[in-house]
Amino acid sequence: MKLPGQEEFEVSSACENVPTGELENGPGSCPSPDGTSDTDRGDRGVPTDSLLFIQLNELLGWPQALEWRETGRWVLFEEKLEVGAGRWSVPHVPTLALPSLQKLRSLLAEGLVLLDCPAQSFLELVEQVTRVESLSPELRGQLQALLLQRPQHLIQPTGTRPCQGSAHPREASHNEEAPLKEQRQNPLRQKLPPGAEAGAVLAGELGFLVRPLGAFVRLRDPVVLGPLIEVPLPSRFFCLLLGPSTLGRGYHEMGRAMAVLLSDRQFQWSVRRASSLHDLLAALDAFLEEVTVLPPGRWDPTARIAPPKCLPSQHKRLLSQLREVKGPSAQHGALAEDRHGHWPHAPSPELQRTGRLFGGLVQDVRRKALWYTSDFLDALHPQCFSAVLYIYLATITNAITFGGLLGEATNGAQGVLESFLGTAVAGAAFCLMAGQPLTILSSTGPVLVFERLLFSFSRDYSLDYLPFRLWVGIWVATFCLALVATEASVLVRYFTRFTEEGFCALISLIFIYDAVGKMLSLTSAYPIQSPGSPAYGCFCQYPDLGGNESQWKKTEPKDRDDISSMDLGLVNASLLPPPECARRGGHPRGPGCHIVPDIAFFSVLLFLTSFLIATALKHVKTSRFFPSVVRKVLGDFSSVLAMLLGCGLDSFLGLATPKLMVPSEFKPTLPGRGWLVSPFGANPWWLSVAAALPALLLSILIFMDQQITAVILNRAEYKLRKGAGFHLDLFCVAVLLLLTSVLGLPWYVSATVISLAHMDSLRRESTACVLGEPRSFLGIREQRLTGLVVFILTGASIFLAPVLKFIPMPVLYGIFLYMGVAAISSIQFTKRVQLLLMPAKHQPDLLLLRHVPLSRVHLFTAIQLACLGLLWIIKSTPAAIIFPLMLLGLVGVRKALEWVFSPQELLWLDELMPEKERNIPEKGLEPEYSLSGDTEDVSRRMGPLRRRGQEWGGPS
Amino acid sequence: MKLPGQEEFEVSSACENVPTGELENGPGSCPSPDGTSDTDRGDRGVPTDSLLFIQLNELLGWPQALEWRETGRWVLFEEKLEVGAGRWSVPHVPTLALPSLQKLRSLLAEGLVLLDCPAQSFLELVEQVTRVESLSPELRGQLQALLLQRPQHLIQPTGTRPCQGSAHPREASHNEEAPLKEQRQNPLRQKLPPGAEAGAVLAGELGFLVRPLGAFVRLRDPVVLGPLIEVPLPSRFFCLLLGPSTLGRGYHEMGRAMAVLLSDRQFQWSVRRASSLHDLLAALDAFLEEVTVLPPGRWDPTARIAPPKCLPSQHKRLLSQLREVKGPSAQHGALAEDRHGHWPHAPSPELQRTGRLFGGLVQDVRRKALWYTSDFLDALHPQCFSAVLYIYLATITNAITFGGLLGEATNGAQGVLESFLGTAVAGAAFCLMAGQPLTILSSTGPVLVFERLLFSFSRDYSLDYLPFRLWVGIWVATFCLALVATEASVLVRYFTRFTEEGFCALISLIFIYDAVGKMLSLTSAYPIQSPGSPAYGCFCQYPDLGGNESQWKKTEPKDRDDISSMDLGLVNASLLPPPECARRGGHPRGPGCHIVPDIAFFSVLLFLTSFLIATALKHVKTSRFFPSVVRKVLGDFSSVLAMLLGCGLDSFLGLATPKLMVPSEFKPTLPGRGWLVSPFGANPWWLSVAAALPALLLSILIFMDQQITAVILNRAEYKLRKGAGFHLDLFCVAVLLLLTSVLGLPWYVSATVISLAHMDSLRRESTACVLGEPRSFLGIREQRLTGLVVFILTGASIFLAPVLKFIPMPVLYGIFLYMGVAAISSIQFTKRVQLLLMPAKHQPDLLLLRHVPLSRVHLFTAIQLACLGLLWIIKSTPAAIIFPLMLLGLVGVRKALEWVFSPQELLWLDELMPEKERNIPEKGLEPEYSLSGDTEDVSRRMGPLRRRGQEWGGPS
Repeated sequence: MKLPGQEEFEVSSACENVPTGELENGPGSCPSPDGTSDTDRGDRGVPTDSLLFIQLNELLGWPQALEWRETGRWVLFEEKLEVGAGRWSVPHVPTLALPSLQKLRSLLAEGLVLLDCPAQSFLELVEQVTRVESLSPELRGQLQALLLQRPQHLIQPTGTRPCQGSAHPREASHNEEAPLKEQRQNPLRQKLPPGAEAGAVLAGELGFLVRPLGAFVRLRDPVVLGPLIEVPLPSRFFCLLLGPSTLGRGYHEMGRAMAVLLSDRQFQWSVRRASSLHDLLAALDAFLEEVTVLPPGRWDPTARIAPPKCLPSQHKRLLSQLREVKGPSAQHGALAEDRHGHWPHAPSPELQRTGRLFGGLVQDVRRKALWYTSDFLDALHPQCFSAVLYIYLATITNAITFGGLLGEATNGAQGVLESFLGTAVAGAAFCLMAGQPLTILSSTGPVLVFERLLFSFSRDYSLDYLPFRLWVGIWVATFCLALVATEASVLVRYFTRFTEEGFCALISLIFIYDAVGKMLSLTSAYPIQSPGSPAYGCFCQYPDLGGNESQWKKTEPKDRDDISSMDLGLVNASLLPPPECARRGGHPRGPGCHIVPDIAFFSVLLFLTSFLIATALKHVKTSRFFPSVVRKVLGDFSSVLAMLLGCGLDSFLGLATPKLMVPSEFKPTLPGRGWLVSPFGANPWWLSVAAALPALLLSILIFMDQQITAVILNRAEYKLRKGAGFHLDLFCVAVLLLLTSVLGLPWYVSATVISLAHMDSLRRESTACVLGEPRSFLGIREQRLTGLVVFILTGASIFLAPVLKFIPMPVLYGIFLYMGVAAISSIQFTKRVQLLLMPAKHQPDLLLLRHVPLSRVHLFTAIQLACLGLLWIIKSTPAAIIFPLMLLGLVGVRKALEWVFSPQELLWLDELMPEKERNIPEKGLEPEYSLSGDTEDVSRRMGPLRRRGQEWGGPS
Repeated sequence: MKLPGQEEFEVSSACENVPTGELENGPGSCPSPDGTSDTDRGDRGVPTDSLLFIQLNELLGWPQALEWRETGRWVLFEEKLEVGAGRWSVPHVPTLALPSLQKLRSLLAEGLVLLDCPAQSFLELVEQVTRVESLSPELRGQLQALLLQRPQHLIQPTGTRPCQGSAHPREASHNEEAPLKEQRQNPLRQKLPPGAEAGAVLAGELGFLVRPLGAFVRLRDPVVLGPLIEVPLPSRFFCLLLGPSTLGRGYHEMGRAMAVLLSDRQFQWSVRRASSLHDLLAALDAFLEEVTVLPPGRWDPTARIAPPKCLPSQHKRLLSQLREVKGPSAQHGALAEDRHGHWPHAPSPELQRTGRLFGGLVQDVRRKALWYTSDFLDALHPQCFSAVLYIYLATITNAITFGGLLGEATNGAQGVLESFLGTAVAGAAFCLMAGQPLTILSSTGPVLVFERLLFSFSRDYSLDYLPFRLWVGIWVATFCLALVATEASVLVRYFTRFTEEGFCALISLIFIYDAVGKMLSLTSAYPIQSPGSPAYGCFCQYPDLGGNESQWKKTEPKDRDDISSMDLGLVNASLLPPPECARRGGHPRGPGCHIVPDIAFFSVLLFLTSFLIATALKHVKTSRFFPSVVRKVLGDFSSVLAMLLGCGLDSFLGLATPKLMVPSEFKPTLPGRGWLVSPFGANPWWLSVAAALPALLLSILIFMDQQITAVILNRAEYKLRKGAGFHLDLFCVAVLLLLTSVLGLPWYVSATVISLAHMDSLRRESTACVLGEPRSFLGIREQRLTGLVVFILTGASIFLAPVLKFIPMPVLYGIFLYMGVAAISSIQFTKRVQLLLMPAKHQPDLLLLRHVPLSRVHLFTAIQLACLGLLWIIKSTPAAIIFPLMLLGLVGVRKALEWVFSPQELLWLDELMPEKERNIPEKGLEPEYSLSGDTEDVSRRMGPLRRRGQEWGGPS
């Protein structure tokens, strides 16, 4: 299922090319705007130019009541004043009319340009800009008075949390006017990063001017210009555009054009360094070279374009300039860099083979040991508290659901208590020892499926399950250690999207099939009584006391209520309900005695409501309703809430629905066993050797499940600093597997979704939150403490067990269905299956479809469907237990696909296998692949993440 | 609820400013591009310029394997060749880089421009354009050979239906080459209107050229240029852009720029009339003046923008030019025109008061009499068959649902049989006589609610219902005739959105409340047996035969099955189910005998599934899945299908759910009454006078319901030619009301949704369907026959009655809930209530919110909520029957709101009342209101339609 908060993760990581780090640094000087160094500039900490906040003050009310009013503001996107509504518009992509830019250019060319103006206050500045020959002294006086008039600002209270470290005016200029109270209290101030500067554009029509007056000023030292700007920021740029009233709204549009120009980072860079009017105009012309033009008549120019989720990077701007200048061949270098930097399966350095036995493990231990202290110190942040609460709830939901299902699948060999205990022990141990302590260990879908198969196998051959399972565990641990020794984790790169999707789709389908199947099996346990059904009626027969019947009846005490004595002349029978009957010493007799009415349909209702409520609550997160905190809670805890609601509905009606079986005391669920599993039990000795065969299969499964998750968690886009530990993690999993087998607890591996949720709750974000722009992602609080606390709490929750017996099984099946549906709908394979049902002209404009013929896409999907069908058939035969081997067979099928599809096609439909990746010629990649920032492209790069955004380990 | 196909209606009518008629005419000459005449040009039939199909052929493969390939095509939007996928992209708004336009301009300025070139074939044309000084003879030969090379076209088979009257090459030019087979078979040809011309742009890099070669040719007579264009259209324009390979993709971009220019209608107009290079460049400059500019770095230039649903009109383009030139004051005239032309409540000419008694009625009859013959002849079109099928299904679904509910509400005084009979009689009569024969008469929600109240009133006072109802009907008919006589229909303009929304919201809530309430009442009729419930057990007691009990038991024949004899020593009782017991002469005894288990929860399941399936199927219509025909069927028949599925599920399980009660023979549902209602029955004589009081209330209701519907149906955007008949319609309704009261049948008025669906199924559309552009709407097939046939079929369906008794009531309640929910979610009021729950920053960017402060919006919503609460309270008291009066009271509240809100605010939140509308100063309207083509603006104008896009009469 989709990870809570994963969308943001995806966006932030997809936008990794964007120099988001740029905005968060203090003021500084002159780095080159050379895009190639953009990506790592934030990391290297090179200071960049300050952020510019641009404000447009318009002169309104000519001729009667002149006043200045702020009508627009920009950082990157535009916010317009909506006069009637008295509020700021939503931030949107600004659009301009081309003539306004051209008029602005000519006004600037003829006007006054002051670069490095030494003015220290607004008064000085006004004096400077009005020192124009064309103005008579009276006019100049009038104009100065007008300019010094206090402008109207709309200061809007907002409910948004401030960024840490908000903007404060710098002490730089000694002479600045004290900012007004409303300026200081402006909440906008909190949203701008420290060191931000302002640019003011003043525009309007002024009837007493004979000719237009344009002035552009760059102040040598930024100065707070009194009440001019709505926030008390020091201003760096000042632009005045006034003129006679011939142009209509022309000045407004010119003012907007100037503001949009000033909010362009390339233009800012140039104009900060301009030394003459010529440089200024050249910067404007360079801007014009880069604009995108929408032809008239095909787009409503007044429509507002929402800010894109992912900004085109400056890097890309430079590349497209390069392309313009040097032609396609110039891009190869950049392209190659782009490809290797962000390749979905680009191997981490930790995945390089050392060639020594246990070489990888040793390296992992060495690397992680360095960070061990900081792994606890870094947890001292309030954010970690909420992370603990969130992940704790997710973990116990998971433990309950999987515990309940395991208990049923293994006929009590496992149960809720084992699930809690195992989760706590294995999880805590892993957090303390593992290479990647952000990982949350959990029962996952594939292992659950395997355990179910193993149990039915051992039942079919009348084996003693737990001892047999112990030997499987011993062997799996041995095989895994062998895999660690041989550094097999580096092979994970052969699992392409094709393999992972097959893996995911099969397991999701098993989930869905099981959930629905178990639900339907309830209706046979609690059959529906249709009219005329033979299974009708039940009554309570009392033992024949041997006496006279009438006499017996007479002696009956009067306190028996009317119903139980409503026997209509029958003395040794009544209509008491079976439990009551038994209590009074009678025997319920009749075919209807074991039938509980209404349970079947009520269970279906519970099943459907918990599924639908979980799905609906999940969608609340992306809806517009409620404050974001409420939405986040509802979305993140959707399955917990759905479960609670289901339990509430059930206990409200008080029907005897089947409930989760929970032991009443702290002992293993299976009666009569101790905490240690005996090594042989009733099994023959040779079974301990034979167990190696299923263990081999389970090892494959655990290896696939564990390592794919590990690759995803350690992806470059999460900006982890402390490195990964693939070999160490697998080693820990092996050891814990041995431990849980000995204790007869469930088996655990890393769970993708819940671990990603853990990371998401520990995100560090930039302090800058420019209007309309997403916050930038700095990294994760990497530490071991949150996970540890979560599992300690989980261990303590074993005493919650008495509460858990109120959970009806249909509710758990509903949650289970929700997990399966969410998982299968998150993979690209499902989207391609949907394409089969869509007429070509209604298909979404996916990049994939732009590059691969539809028939080839359908062929690929059909092959996947065929593989899935084959896997399903194998799963349904007695050979079901070998399905991990078949999953591995998908890698072979994928290899064979290289004869059917071209590398380009596979690149779009799947991804390339390691050796092919090296061989593909540069020109095989079309330029759009790396240059376009399209959403599909994003999803491609994020493919494996999204793919595993389904996983089994998480409740939501 | 939302009308099937209403979206399209809304779009087409919202886009009424778009000169959609322009494309459908043949070739012609020189109308002025003056926007002001655009709107009616189509109507007046003034010939316009031909449609231009532009194709870009690019020269690829330099230097090894030169070939021409068509890489883009345009009519209004752009389709790109997706080489890898081998398909055309979806049509999208073209975007250009500004430099490519500038380079194109300079290339044209230096290049060859041939206007009215007399070439008669491609060969001649090629000779003409290569006659350039800079080319040596050899180069010229090479170039000519290259140009004559056959280009590669991607001809894509499509599944779309052809437009009627597709494009065929004109016979004009005698010398043209025969088109190739692939050209003739191109399905694109079917999509272009007759008379379309082509423009060819050839661009590419050609290494052997020393300097760029640009040529622009306008042919005197359009000529089919051999295989140059993928469809054999005569070409009017030809443009060649070749040059040395210094510019990279520059030629591609220049070619695109040229193509985009040529696909602009203003540019086309200018360049068709250009007489020199100077004119051509001026046209290009004029284009540049109008482009919208997106600044770099804030929008990904490779993202494709989907064509807008509603094109900005040429009219608007002109207006915005005007604004640019003359300033805001220049717009007032145009604005006023715009406002009056499209005002939501702009009165039809039929709503002008004549001042004479029955003056309006007489006028209506005169006007409609002229069209009476054509009302039958115009129905001779195949489209009418499908309209009949669709509306017939909708009508009987409605008759079943409302019949079932009325039967229950009136305790059988009305029923399904009456519903069918009444619908057939009233509907057919109305279609024959009415002013607006497209109207479908139906039982509507408000009348149903009133009838329910009337029935409970008469039951409370022990009145004989049907005679009482007859007098109410007589009085209502009288009052309605009085309203016709006094031309009261013109007052309908005082019902603003505020009134209508109050009306709609109240009725929707009653629907929802009733549906859920009836559902819950089922659970008390079929109680749920919780464990330990006292109502347990039932057994079958046989009458005491007086003989020896053991003996009786012995004589029992062996053929009695085990269950029934499972009496465990009891001789005079068994566990037979009650029906079986009764059949065998026994008596079911015990508290559980009347309890049918499982029915309650199964009913809830049926209720929920029918509601959810109807909702889901409705959404299929706007999904991407399935061909459009399938989607349309699923969407349009969503409630029929949901009902069928519910019935199927019910009969599959065969439980004794409560079913629709249907009489088994053709006689009134109420036992013992004849077809004519006796005028007094058991009622006192004075009740016939007292009935005037409820009749007054019902008259108000019927007047509101009927006339608001009539206004909506006769809106200008439907382009009806035969005029409306408000007074005549009300007259017919009154007469039919009298008739149905006498016969004891339900009462009928016009139903908005079903009538709109009727109109929608009779749409006439333009033959032109330019790529990416919506089809244009020409009008409705106005006639009386489809309605008449529908109602004749409905009458015949009375014999369907035996089938109807399989419909479970919970399914009907589910459909009822669906209607209520769909209705309440379609009104703007609901959207404003939702705003209350949204934090300001997540609110959608509605035009309303741009112009009215949020607090005022909330105040308005709160007042509406308070009114609704008051209405609900009144409805819940014994005074419930006066609710129509209270609805009318909303008009008064709305009037009072003028003291609270400014006219501008009311304009955005509601609409103005007639006298205010005249008084509002022009400057009160902000320019955006009329100039922006924003969606919210559209929805404002379409307000009343959408508002009533909920109505009660329709099943879907």
